[in-house]
Amino acid sequence: MANNTFKEIAEVLLNAQTILIFPHINADGDAAGSASALCHTLRELGKTAYILIEDQIPANLKFMDRGYFTFDDKVIEHPDVSICVDCGDFGRFPKRREKFISAQTTVCVDHHGTTEEFCEFNYVDPAAAATGELVYALIKEMGAEPDVETGEAIFTAITTDTGNFQYSNTTKNCHIIMAELFDLGVDTNKVSVEIYENERPEKLMITTRALSTLEIFGGGCGAIACLTLEDMKEIGAEPFETDGVIDNLRSISGVEYAAFVKEKEPGVIRVSMRAKRRGNVAEIASQLGGGGHVKAAGCTLNMPLDEAVNLVKSKLNEAIKEL
Amino acid sequence: MANNTFKEIAEVLLNAQTILIFPHINADGDAAGSASALCHTLRELGKTAYILIEDQIPANLKFMDRGYFTFDDKVIEHPDVSICVDCGDFGRFPKRREKFISAQTTVCVDHHGTTEEFCEFNYVDPAAAATGELVYALIKEMGAEPDVETGEAIFTAITTDTGNFQYSNTTKNCHIIMAELFDLGVDTNKVSVEIYENERPEKLMITTRALSTLEIFGGGCGAIACLTLEDMKEIGAEPFETDGVIDNLRSISGVEYAAFVKEKEPGVIRVSMRAKRRGNVAEIASQLGGGGHVKAAGCTLNMPLDEAVNLVKSKLNEAIKEL
Repeated sequence: MANNTFKEIAEVLLNAQTILIFPHINADGDAAGSASALCHTLRELGKTAYILIEDQIPANLKFMDRGYFTFDDKVIEHPDVSICVDCGDFGRFPKRREKFISAQTTVCVDHHGTTEEFCEFNYVDPAAAATGELVYALIKEMGAEPDVETGEAIFTAITTDTGNFQYSNTTKNCHIIMAELFDLGVDTNKVSVEIYENERPEKLMITTRALSTLEIFGGGCGAIACLTLEDMKEIGAEPFETDGVIDNLRSISGVEYAAFVKEKEPGVIRVSMRAKRRGNVAEIASQLGGGGHVKAAGCTLNMPLDEAVNLVKSKLNEAIKEL
Repeated sequence: MANNTFKEIAEVLLNAQTILIFPHINADGDAAGSASALCHTLRELGKTAYILIEDQIPANLKFMDRGYFTFDDKVIEHPDVSICVDCGDFGRFPKRREKFISAQTTVCVDHHGTTEEFCEFNYVDPAAAATGELVYALIKEMGAEPDVETGEAIFTAITTDTGNFQYSNTTKNCHIIMAELFDLGVDTNKVSVEIYENERPEKLMITTRALSTLEIFGGGCGAIACLTLEDMKEIGAEPFETDGVIDNLRSISGVEYAAFVKEKEPGVIRVSMRAKRRGNVAEIASQLGGGGHVKAAGCTLNMPLDEAVNLVKSKLNEAIKEL
């Protein structure tokens, strides 16, 4: 798709007075951080700006919300600009679609490779590790001076989307931006404590429960763990609180394929898969009716949990033979 | 203490032909990474250089050993220079002390605040996040071109000692160095997989076992977990494989004090404590005969495990009342 320049998008925002910002549903650090940095900057520039959401942002990201996030789609009746951040398509903000397109001008800033051109102005860069990187460049292009609050939100966006600078999407530019944030006086450790040391005990308990089912197979190249609906209910865990399980499985030496199998509803099983160095889970997920990336993919299976575990293990065992 | 300049230390190394490098016992990523980067560079410069150790380096750091590490203190009979990295005093390489001081010239490069002046040439900077930062500067001062191998070792040193750029010791300089490493072509993700996705299943199992004992107390401000000697034996875990438990405890929302209590031998109990934002565990550890930093401290108690747990809880409960 053809990108606009940051200059063009900056002008659109500078010429507007009322701006609504749209992060995606199940907002992560990048979506919430990009939205917060942008909202704060726009307000500093004298604009009326809000972040419109349709579901709660996670508790550990709420430190960024200084009156920015709202469920009230009447907060700005007829926005001059709607800008979505970190959203590849309308499906990423389904209940806010009508409001989004009601603006005079629509803008998309994103780093997902799959982004469709659904806005009037677009800046999509799949080489960016985080949308926060792009928002940071846009803020500077607008002639705004990034401050500590902006910096905290940009740090959140980049550190969470790069797995704390460990994932393969991490770039030189991420570290250059971080160096600049230190000049702004951002206390990255303080922010990190907010993001990462803010878990409910239930998260620890459900992770522990899942890992207690650990099974290593395929000559040590496969690791699998599972959770029943009963486990989730008994512990009172939220669905997103099982997010870390799969990374724990992949951390095992020798494991090239990891799978986490979770009963969402009776007979509805969510499967997450990861490859470490050589494997390709996108292919396996696709065979099972799902999809994703080479190193991280998933699918949903309609069968009892134990059948799903066996099916996934047999698929991974086939893949392990080809390593 | 009075530091020498990097230039002076670089000259000492450039004028030497045979150099022995001394990382500390229980080498971590910073010690092993600093030593590896230095050894590789010295060999590239035509020197005879080895890293002398007295205990095994952890499996996840062995990727850096390209024939550098040796237990053989005869590998260089009379070294021109002995240089210790990341070591605050002789106690950090107790069995190698005689060999160290047998060199014509001794050098210390370190970032620990407690470093004594026990070498002829010293560069000690407690403001550095990692000794790897200092070694990187020294390598450049020597006029050597850092290459990918050097860069991988420096990345290891800095990312491990900063908790992946999340700890409060992280500086602007860490990120500036990281940006330079990308220019060298370092694949930081590949290295990260070596460091962090190389755990024995026993580590996951012992962590799970410990977390299954999680108890929250003090109105949600305290978290404690424990392990018996029997747990360790049953699972077959190595002592260092319980390292991550305490971080898991501190990650809980609301928890300001976390403690992990482990039976080392019957009646000998090792206690690790962490404070999150406001607390001071150095003080508590000191009351119990131990010591450490404000946010991370520990002690050893001679009593049965359950008594130790109760004692630590009562101490932390007192501290929680003062928050």
